[in-house]
Amino acid sequence: MEKKLEELKNRLFEVNDLNMIGAVLNWDQSTYMPPGGAAARGRQMATAGRIAHEKFTDAAVGKLLDDLQSYEESLPYDHDDAALIRVTRRNYEQLTKVPGELLATFLAHSAETYQIWAKARPENDFTAVSTHLEKTVDYSRQIANCFPGYDHIADPLIDFSDLGMKAESVRTLFAELREALVPLAQAITAQELADDSCLKQTYPENEQLAFGQQIIKAYGYDFERGRQDKTHHPFMTKFSLGDVRITTRVKENDLSEALFSTLHEAGHALYEQGINMAYEGTPLANGTSSGVHESQSRLWENQVGRSRTFWQHYYPQLQAAFPAQLGAVSLDTFYRAVNKVQRSLIRTDADEVTYNLHVMIRFDLELALLEGSLSVKDLPEMWHGRYQSDLGLRAPDDSDGVLQDVHWYGGLVGGAFQGYTLGNIMSALFYEQALTAHPEIPAEIGQGQFNTLHTWLQNSIYTHGSKFTANELVERVTGAPLTIAPYIRYLQTKFGELYKL
Amino acid sequence: MEKKLEELKNRLFEVNDLNMIGAVLNWDQSTYMPPGGAAARGRQMATAGRIAHEKFTDAAVGKLLDDLQSYEESLPYDHDDAALIRVTRRNYEQLTKVPGELLATFLAHSAETYQIWAKARPENDFTAVSTHLEKTVDYSRQIANCFPGYDHIADPLIDFSDLGMKAESVRTLFAELREALVPLAQAITAQELADDSCLKQTYPENEQLAFGQQIIKAYGYDFERGRQDKTHHPFMTKFSLGDVRITTRVKENDLSEALFSTLHEAGHALYEQGINMAYEGTPLANGTSSGVHESQSRLWENQVGRSRTFWQHYYPQLQAAFPAQLGAVSLDTFYRAVNKVQRSLIRTDADEVTYNLHVMIRFDLELALLEGSLSVKDLPEMWHGRYQSDLGLRAPDDSDGVLQDVHWYGGLVGGAFQGYTLGNIMSALFYEQALTAHPEIPAEIGQGQFNTLHTWLQNSIYTHGSKFTANELVERVTGAPLTIAPYIRYLQTKFGELYKL
Repeated sequence: MEKKLEELKNRLFEVNDLNMIGAVLNWDQSTYMPPGGAAARGRQMATAGRIAHEKFTDAAVGKLLDDLQSYEESLPYDHDDAALIRVTRRNYEQLTKVPGELLATFLAHSAETYQIWAKARPENDFTAVSTHLEKTVDYSRQIANCFPGYDHIADPLIDFSDLGMKAESVRTLFAELREALVPLAQAITAQELADDSCLKQTYPENEQLAFGQQIIKAYGYDFERGRQDKTHHPFMTKFSLGDVRITTRVKENDLSEALFSTLHEAGHALYEQGINMAYEGTPLANGTSSGVHESQSRLWENQVGRSRTFWQHYYPQLQAAFPAQLGAVSLDTFYRAVNKVQRSLIRTDADEVTYNLHVMIRFDLELALLEGSLSVKDLPEMWHGRYQSDLGLRAPDDSDGVLQDVHWYGGLVGGAFQGYTLGNIMSALFYEQALTAHPEIPAEIGQGQFNTLHTWLQNSIYTHGSKFTANELVERVTGAPLTIAPYIRYLQTKFGELYKL
Repeated sequence: MEKKLEELKNRLFEVNDLNMIGAVLNWDQSTYMPPGGAAARGRQMATAGRIAHEKFTDAAVGKLLDDLQSYEESLPYDHDDAALIRVTRRNYEQLTKVPGELLATFLAHSAETYQIWAKARPENDFTAVSTHLEKTVDYSRQIANCFPGYDHIADPLIDFSDLGMKAESVRTLFAELREALVPLAQAITAQELADDSCLKQTYPENEQLAFGQQIIKAYGYDFERGRQDKTHHPFMTKFSLGDVRITTRVKENDLSEALFSTLHEAGHALYEQGINMAYEGTPLANGTSSGVHESQSRLWENQVGRSRTFWQHYYPQLQAAFPAQLGAVSLDTFYRAVNKVQRSLIRTDADEVTYNLHVMIRFDLELALLEGSLSVKDLPEMWHGRYQSDLGLRAPDDSDGVLQDVHWYGGLVGGAFQGYTLGNIMSALFYEQALTAHPEIPAEIGQGQFNTLHTWLQNSIYTHGSKFTANELVERVTGAPLTIAPYIRYLQTKFGELYKL
């Protein structure tokens, strides 16, 4: 058995090397690659991806997994070897159940769709991409149908990013959340808008970057095992557990852009840097789901990084770094500015209160497209209708409407968005649990110290990598299934205080 | 036939993708990678290299080459398809004649030796690495013996980097060169040393980099298809013909470091950027030999970048960029400073006149080790003896003696050094030929214009990639075999004028 496990691991290490290589190629493409490198880079990424796929879906891997089943069954569920075999089998089945030809055709279609969308969005031309989007919906259905036995056709697609979540259970959670969010958003937006002009002054790039880096260092982000570079769209990427990088985007006329994207991506990176080193090179060495990943980026960005306690410590330092811009701005004004709530059209710019309403619109529309109750041609108008009813706004065009997010134009329709809101819900759930275990955490944050919180997250969540699913992790950490209660409490307390509700 | 050629190309593209991926991984390792990434990066590079090797040495490639032989024979020698099949076959034979197991054992040995050397050099401990070096000599002999029929055991190893050059012919060239160089070096070093203190002031990094970049842009280096980053050891690397990058090292207390390494690496890059785009992804899309590659780096660094004409144009700009440092330094003083000739211990710091003496010592010692007339235990003393007799100096220790260069400790003994001097020789040969064709070149250089020279090199050398060997290229360009005469003329004229000989 030991030999078989060894052989499986060696095959996994090779696949992992190729996947990590793909990440390096992508990082370079987004950070430093000159324009002339683009054509060849596309081919290089495709080659690495194709070989990784071939090697992972090799029948020999399936045979090893079969041979190891009795060993797996002899072990406790949370034994590392059992988890490795279980998670590898799950990934193997996900990748082998979709016929290679279908996958290849879809990927080619997807690359083409992305190119068309990248042109169609600035030109506000939804019809240019609508035939492709129809095909995407069709491919998404075909891929879902490779996994028969589902309750809802979106379930297998949701499984790709948030394993174990179901359309129905997510719908229920989201409906509950909506009931609390809508009146909260209404009560806040009935008041005068917060003044965030203090953030819109000129802030030199280097000083902005230095300030953000100093904070994430204090969070526990290890620059010996990572680095920060600039990109057009911020992201976190990993080349190994010893090399977890983040990127940011700096706007010299908007202090919040680089600062909060840095805290957000550092949250993702803390998760990956915290995975048990013994899992290196295997499928266990990844965050377990989109939702759990997002819970960490949002926890460090929002629960911590937009809290009053946090700024009680950091604001004097920020003022010292930017005396001309902030010397005369009070902590209270600054705190209200970084927590400004406003109905808006663009998901990625949305505040903590309204953000989830954007996600829910997309989630509902995805399900309707997959079910066939909504056709692609009616999608733009349905989008506007939902923005009108849920957020009281209508985008002037499709560029800031149905064309605003890349997800449907560079991947599947189905499963693309729920992770953002699941992440917000879990961020509060985990944070509340950390505070219960260590009531001293807020006081420490007020001192610019994050070690107790970081250590608790490390031991409760990060170290496990993909050993447990999101649902299992929530159960282990809180002793109960996923619930929105802590998240509602968090929002109501924070924004109730801010807006005297 | 067309289908077979197509199939061969597709296999070559895949291998090329994997090789280029290896280059990206290596570039990142040398420029931006945090320390924590090192362990996994070594494995990732090994995986990409192993798969590339497996795919290139696949028997199916050999079969395709056999099938294509009659097609190749039906074509003129300089037809692109004929060249592709010929060069691919040559590389295929080089890689398949060495048994996979021998190669793998040697590569593992080599990686280990490098680690030991990296520690032994600063500790001045040759004995720590001498047993490994003995094994390297033995492996080098074994690998050479995979290519029976050679005149000298070093010939197959020389072929790896300078195909078609032979130990005997190189020895003859070097002996001739030595006869001219020794008296020249003696005549110069009998005089007072040039004063280069003007270069050793404080020069801020960003201004240094900007100045170098402005020059190489004028040379014709295309920043849309390349970029410059900082590393410990400067190098040129290529990820595709559209992405050819260079690196440099800046010393704020030595202006010549970044400046001339930038011109040098840009010379390598101009060669690669100039290869016929139709060769992209195939073995033709590479510089043809170490010697020809070095001829281009040295031509742009020395023949152009250390010429008086060049500085007549650029020195006023350099003074304007660094008025406090150079405002009071005359062009003549500066020109003498960047052409200072001095007997020294370290090859990489050597000037144009003495540089080749360093290379010859290494070349002779390599041959002696391979022939068995010199044993590794006697090598350090032999090194000191040769430095004493050839350069009149003795290093205080082995760190600056036999341990100074990485080559023997990270690769084969044999074939590692001759390319540097062959490059110098060819740089003058090609440059003289360009001047014969276009006598206006020096006047243009005096205006900071390089287009005529660049275009001539592009059409005569760069565009061909690996289509012709170095010897073939020299014959095509000059109508005669390689000769040292132009190089001697160049050195005697330039340094004769500088030192009034």
